[in-house]
Amino acid sequence: MEEKVRQLECLTQFSALINSTLDPELVREKALEATCALIGCETASLYLVDRKTGELYWETALGDAGRQLKNTVRLPINDRSIAGYVAMSGESLIINDVQNDPRHFKKASTQSSFRTYTMLCAPLKARDSVIGVLQALNKLPSVPRRQSMHDWADFFESDLRLLESLGHQVAIAIENSRLYTDLKQSFYGTVEALSEAVEKKDRYTGGHTQRVVYYSMCIARHMNLSTEEMERIRLAALMHDIGKIGIEDRILKKQNPLDGDERSIMQKHPELGYDIMSRVEGLRDVVAGMRYHHERWDGGGYPSGLAGVEIPLVARIIAVADAFDAMVSNRPYRKGHPASKAYEEITGNAGTQFDPVVVDAFTIAFTAGEFIQSDITD
Amino acid sequence: MEEKVRQLECLTQFSALINSTLDPELVREKALEATCALIGCETASLYLVDRKTGELYWETALGDAGRQLKNTVRLPINDRSIAGYVAMSGESLIINDVQNDPRHFKKASTQSSFRTYTMLCAPLKARDSVIGVLQALNKLPSVPRRQSMHDWADFFESDLRLLESLGHQVAIAIENSRLYTDLKQSFYGTVEALSEAVEKKDRYTGGHTQRVVYYSMCIARHMNLSTEEMERIRLAALMHDIGKIGIEDRILKKQNPLDGDERSIMQKHPELGYDIMSRVEGLRDVVAGMRYHHERWDGGGYPSGLAGVEIPLVARIIAVADAFDAMVSNRPYRKGHPASKAYEEITGNAGTQFDPVVVDAFTIAFTAGEFIQSDITD
Repeated sequence: MEEKVRQLECLTQFSALINSTLDPELVREKALEATCALIGCETASLYLVDRKTGELYWETALGDAGRQLKNTVRLPINDRSIAGYVAMSGESLIINDVQNDPRHFKKASTQSSFRTYTMLCAPLKARDSVIGVLQALNKLPSVPRRQSMHDWADFFESDLRLLESLGHQVAIAIENSRLYTDLKQSFYGTVEALSEAVEKKDRYTGGHTQRVVYYSMCIARHMNLSTEEMERIRLAALMHDIGKIGIEDRILKKQNPLDGDERSIMQKHPELGYDIMSRVEGLRDVVAGMRYHHERWDGGGYPSGLAGVEIPLVARIIAVADAFDAMVSNRPYRKGHPASKAYEEITGNAGTQFDPVVVDAFTIAFTAGEFIQSDITD
Repeated sequence: MEEKVRQLECLTQFSALINSTLDPELVREKALEATCALIGCETASLYLVDRKTGELYWETALGDAGRQLKNTVRLPINDRSIAGYVAMSGESLIINDVQNDPRHFKKASTQSSFRTYTMLCAPLKARDSVIGVLQALNKLPSVPRRQSMHDWADFFESDLRLLESLGHQVAIAIENSRLYTDLKQSFYGTVEALSEAVEKKDRYTGGHTQRVVYYSMCIARHMNLSTEEMERIRLAALMHDIGKIGIEDRILKKQNPLDGDERSIMQKHPELGYDIMSRVEGLRDVVAGMRYHHERWDGGGYPSGLAGVEIPLVARIIAVADAFDAMVSNRPYRKGHPASKAYEEITGNAGTQFDPVVVDAFTIAFTAGEFIQSDITD
C-alpha cells in the first residue's frame, strides 16, 4: 500500500511536469522519462498517429537506439504489430515474451541492436480517439541480478494500470501542445502569406520577407537570446515591411529609383505598419521591433532618430538582415551585389549604421556560411 | 492509507479533467469542482493576479454567491487579506476560525450572504511566480450532523497537502490556457488589423470587416454549430476581403461606380485571397469559406458558379452578412439603405441569391434586433 501511495504521488508530479510545457518535443521527451521512472523499465517508446496517412509512426524513444529509429518506423493500424493492435483495439497489453510474439516488429531491433524482452503497451486516447501508443520496455528487476543483461523482470497488471493512468495524462499534454502548435503555425503562416502579398507589389524580387526572417534568426542564434526573444524576432521580421500595405501602388511599383518626395513617402512604411498593428494587444514588443528597423545606431535613421540601445534589439537585428538582403537582391534597375561586397559594407558600418554587437553575431553567422542560400536572388 | 490512495487516484483524474481543455473559463470551473470533490468542502473560490495592475481579483466561485461577486472583489497583494497574504508570501494557510481572523475580507460575505467558517488557502504557482490563489471553504463533516448549518469540520494538514497538489495542476492548466488564448488573440487581432488596413483603401466606409464578423456570428449562433465551426466562420469573415490586397489602387479607390472591366477585376478578390492564403496549412477550411463568399445559392455567383450545398456553409453565411452590410453602408456616390430595406432584400432573395436556411437564421437574428448597431454606418 505504501508503494502504491509513492507511485501515485510520482504520477501526480509527472503529470504536472509533462503538462508544464506546450512544446511538443519537450512533452514527448518528458513523457518517456516519466514512463521509465514510474514503471521502472529500461526504456520507453512512443508512437503517434499520423493525421494525414492514419499510420502509426515511431515518434521518439529514449537513448541512441531511439534516435536512430526516429522517422524510420511506420506501422499500419491493424493486428500485425503490437502497437498497431493496441491502436486499433484501444486495449492495452502486457507481453512478457516479446521475442516470441508473432506481432513483434523485428525491424526495429535489427536496425538499432536494441532487444525488447518484456513490454507494456497502452493506447493514448484524447477526445475518444486514439492519437498514439505508449510502451514501457524491459522491466528492471527490483533486486539487481548478477546474471545476463537479458534477465528482465515480468510486468504485472498493476504496472499496466499505472502506465494507463500516465498515458491518460500524456495524451492530454500531447493534444494541448498540438493545438497550440497548430494555432501558432496558422498565425505565422498567415502573417507570412500576407507579407508576401504586400511584397509582390514592391520592387523587391520575391522572397524578401522569408529571407529577412531567416537571416534575422541566424544572427539571433549567435546572441544567446531566450526562446521568447527569438519568437519576437521571428514575428517582427515577418511583419517588418507590412506597413507597405499603406503605400500607393505608383511608388511601390515604380521601376526606376525613387525621387526625394517618393522616398520620403516610402520611408513612412515602418510608422504605417506600427499604426496598423500597435492596437493588437499581445504584440506590443513585436511591433516596436518592426517600427524601428530603419533606425541607425548613430541616430541618423528614421522614423524617430533613436540611437544605440534606445533602438529595440529586435529592430537592430532586423536592420542588419534587411540591409544585407537589400544589397544582394536584384532590382528592376540594377543587379544585386555579391554577398562578399554586402558583408564588407555591413562590417564597415558597425558602430555607425549598425549595432557592433549585432554585426559581431552577423559576422559569425556569415563566415559559417549561413547567409549563402541558393535562392538568395530568386 | 486506503483513503490516501483513493484521494490520490481522484487527484490524478481531476488533473486530467482540468487539463483536458484550453478554454480558460472551463479550466477555472473544473478546478473549483475538483477542489470541492477532492477536499470535501461546501464551496471553493479562485483569485487570479491581474497582470496589468498586480492586484488579485476574485475570478470565480461555485454557485450563485460566487457569480454575484465576480469582478467586484479586488485585493492588493499584502498581509491585509487572507488571499493577499498567501499570494505575497507564497505560503499556504489553514484557518479554522475565519470569522475571527483579522485578515478576513468581510465585504464578500456582506454582498453575498455567504459565510466562511473554515478555510484552506493555497498559492497557484507557475514558472516560479504566483498567478493566483485557490481556496477551499467550509469543510463538510464526514458524518452529517443534525445541528446548525454552521457546524463545519476543521481542515487538517493532510487536506492542505492535497489542495497544494491540486493547486499545482490548476496553475499549469490556467497558464496553458492563457498562453493559448493570448496567441489566439494575437492571431485574430493581426488578421483584423491587416484586413482593416486593406479596407481603408476601399470605397467602403470603415469597419466593414468587423461588422461582417459580427453579423456572421449573429447568424451562426442561430444555427446550432459547433465551437470549431464558429471559430472557422469568425476567421473566414475576418479574412473575407483580404484578397483586395492584390487589387490596384485605381480600382479600389475609385470614387464613382465601377465600369464592367473594373468590376470584373474587382471580382477577382475572393480568388486572389484564396491564392494568398491557401498554402497556410491549418486554414484550408477557413480559406474555402473566404473563397466562395460571392457565390449564389442558384449558381449565378463567382468565382466558380457553385450552387446550393456545394458552397461551403461558412461562405453561405458570410454572403448574407456581407450583402447586408454592403446595402446599409454609405458609398462615396450613394447613401446607405435603411436596415429594413436591406432586410426585405435579403429575405426576398432567399432560395435565389441566398441559402434559405441561412436566411431563416438571419431573420431570427434581425427580428431580435441583433443587426441594429449604433455604429452601422460610421
